[in-house]
Amino acid sequence: MNLDELKEKFSVKELDEVKVFTENEEFIGTILPSTGKKALTIKMKSGYNIGILAESVIKIEKTGETEKKVFGNLPFSQKGGEGKKIMKIDGLPTISILNTGGTIASRVDYRTGAVSPAIEQEKLITNIPELMETANIETKMISEMFSEDMNFTHYKKIAEEIENEIKEKKPKGIILGHGTDTMHYTSAALSFMLEGINIPVILVGSQRSSDRGSSDAAMNLICATEFISKTDFVGVGICMHESSADDNCVILSGTKSRKMHSSRRDTFKPINDVPIARINFETRKIDYLKENYSKKEENKHLILKTEMEEKTALIKIHPNISSEEIEFYEKQNYKGIVLEGTGLGHAPVGSKGKNTEKNKKNLEAIKKLSEKAVVVMASQAFYGRINMNVYSTGKDLLTAGVIPAEDMTPETAFIKLAWLLGNYSEEETKRLIGKNLRGEITERSDIRGFETE
Amino acid sequence: MNLDELKEKFSVKELDEVKVFTENEEFIGTILPSTGKKALTIKMKSGYNIGILAESVIKIEKTGETEKKVFGNLPFSQKGGEGKKIMKIDGLPTISILNTGGTIASRVDYRTGAVSPAIEQEKLITNIPELMETANIETKMISEMFSEDMNFTHYKKIAEEIENEIKEKKPKGIILGHGTDTMHYTSAALSFMLEGINIPVILVGSQRSSDRGSSDAAMNLICATEFISKTDFVGVGICMHESSADDNCVILSGTKSRKMHSSRRDTFKPINDVPIARINFETRKIDYLKENYSKKEENKHLILKTEMEEKTALIKIHPNISSEEIEFYEKQNYKGIVLEGTGLGHAPVGSKGKNTEKNKKNLEAIKKLSEKAVVVMASQAFYGRINMNVYSTGKDLLTAGVIPAEDMTPETAFIKLAWLLGNYSEEETKRLIGKNLRGEITERSDIRGFETE
Repeated sequence: MNLDELKEKFSVKELDEVKVFTENEEFIGTILPSTGKKALTIKMKSGYNIGILAESVIKIEKTGETEKKVFGNLPFSQKGGEGKKIMKIDGLPTISILNTGGTIASRVDYRTGAVSPAIEQEKLITNIPELMETANIETKMISEMFSEDMNFTHYKKIAEEIENEIKEKKPKGIILGHGTDTMHYTSAALSFMLEGINIPVILVGSQRSSDRGSSDAAMNLICATEFISKTDFVGVGICMHESSADDNCVILSGTKSRKMHSSRRDTFKPINDVPIARINFETRKIDYLKENYSKKEENKHLILKTEMEEKTALIKIHPNISSEEIEFYEKQNYKGIVLEGTGLGHAPVGSKGKNTEKNKKNLEAIKKLSEKAVVVMASQAFYGRINMNVYSTGKDLLTAGVIPAEDMTPETAFIKLAWLLGNYSEEETKRLIGKNLRGEITERSDIRGFETE
Repeated sequence: MNLDELKEKFSVKELDEVKVFTENEEFIGTILPSTGKKALTIKMKSGYNIGILAESVIKIEKTGETEKKVFGNLPFSQKGGEGKKIMKIDGLPTISILNTGGTIASRVDYRTGAVSPAIEQEKLITNIPELMETANIETKMISEMFSEDMNFTHYKKIAEEIENEIKEKKPKGIILGHGTDTMHYTSAALSFMLEGINIPVILVGSQRSSDRGSSDAAMNLICATEFISKTDFVGVGICMHESSADDNCVILSGTKSRKMHSSRRDTFKPINDVPIARINFETRKIDYLKENYSKKEENKHLILKTEMEEKTALIKIHPNISSEEIEFYEKQNYKGIVLEGTGLGHAPVGSKGKNTEKNKKNLEAIKKLSEKAVVVMASQAFYGRINMNVYSTGKDLLTAGVIPAEDMTPETAFIKLAWLLGNYSEEETKRLIGKNLRGEITERSDIRGFETE
């Protein structure tokens, strides 16, 4: 039995509240619009959707109907905000939503099943009346692209758009709609580029497109709007779900976060850091605010520094890596390299003199590279800090000229290195890469003592 | 005041139980041997050690003395097991400990402060009498190297040593002492190489060298010995701390684990999987055992397959990556490439035709590469599954010939690809890379329904 036949048999339709019985299990939830013909999609209380194969369904009981209202986790109407206008209310702060594309501004192409960045900006906003109750929303579509396609030139364009928006509209804060794939690279780039920024710039993405039943777009946008309205935070942050349920959003640091799951809504996690804030979606209250977050200051002004060195690379170290792979970057005159090493900051360089010719060549290649370029070591373990003074491997690499990235993520180290090389001398870059500029490095706490584990 | 002066002033020495007062805080624990002169190292109840700067200490109160016995988290005596012999008791199972080096077999060089792989194998064992009470221990030092120096030839050597040990000593199981940096790469390689293995092979590492106060070596070795003695598990696993406290160890899958912290003892985490078992260190009981773990079978025999294709690479995708970096691998005639992509399995390939020349060149380079090599996509998000049917970027990459790694870690995908290419045809490699061979891929559960999130 296909899905249409199933719905007809049990007289149920989209948005009906139902109990669905299969041979071994029972699901309680709301029927959502389906994109295919094989599976019945149910939104469960947990906030998650489940697809149940139509052929495995034995019985469906209708228990009620959900009103088709616009809500953080119910679908946008396919017709969306047509006819509605973006309202302005005196006395509310202005918040600008700049959209770059990504899932948050996407819709499903029901012909191919694929998602394209094509939803109209106005529709995205008017579909969420909550936004207009909290702030006067200005919107602008600055690009229509997936975040995986972004490169340094796009970061520069976004930073310039932000500066223009601040000059023209004087918003209390800016929300940047962005794909999630590389959101942490962009947030790091903007953190460095927007020196002295005195308003919040919050990147918001979603893991399900805005016209899908399970979209997290509305809730993330509402939480970011509430956060900007209700706090004096300034700087670059990310606003996404805290858990897979639709209960809270968190604001995470623009320089100390990572996408840690390919599909879950709570994919962004702080790395070697705590969240900046938690927003309760039901009460719209700021539940938690980090101590010593960066606050609005008098006489602080934005200085754009948008140059990035194109010849910067990120190499993942792994067993059996060959010296030719490293030499390539020296031959191509790269100016900066982040090695994503193992553990405390290691690479196969044949320390102790007991190892293979292959590994010794790697050490030679890294030495030669660091004579021409700035070579930085981050860890593929992600959590914890680089410490190249513990093992002889680390010491050999330090001697070869490699600079520890402290507790920066490899992604932030890569962006920071390209940015430093774009705006400072090589000498200055070497001095600044291990210094904390935008919260990207946690200082060791020397006074209280340190955890040796 | 330096450390020696401090100890003299308050009449305390190593292994004394103490209360240490600084201006704002109070620490309770046991004084551990220190490697420097500046910090007093205290083992706290939590199992963690803390270094307290000598100059910040106001007062130390002695509350007792810890007996200097050999124990999971107390230091080996510098003189270790000298004079002791490895005992054999009738009726106990035989367990072979093969050691490759790494921190677990290391000692601190107190002159330089660095750690070298140099502790004697016999000393390592006789220092832990618990091992000899549970099993008759055979030991062999097969190398003295850091795991970051291991490459494919070392995996082959280890696999051959394991086969020899099985033939000669017929052990109930094998413990492989190994550095933690690349332990998950080695465990994956052995999982594939040791086809049909009918005993457990448990990799054990430590995050602190065996002669240090805070070493986790003894506890991890004891737990691995208990696990091998008390269960009928067969296959390759990893045994390390479950949390930073010294309460439990976990056995993790050899193909679905990762080092996730540069220094914590509970650094290894299951990725898209649950642990195989939990061993309570106090009771020595197996607290938890996964359903459907691989068990000993009649008539199952080890077939060594140790070839690995040298021309295999692992490339981390990132914003601004250039097509030249990808073309290098095609020009060098690489046979296999794992792309560690973003999100669901993406790379900057300029989908939708709206993007830069730069990104289009990347797609061309990947197309050309996959005509000559097997190109596989894993995710730098680590958790979750590759799904290249959702976005046009993924679809374009599938069309270019890229094969999804499903929910494998990039590290396991890299090892598996090199192993497949070493032992099978290109055609077979393409067919097998996305199929589950050693628990490295979780099957989608099609029957119950699937989570669409």
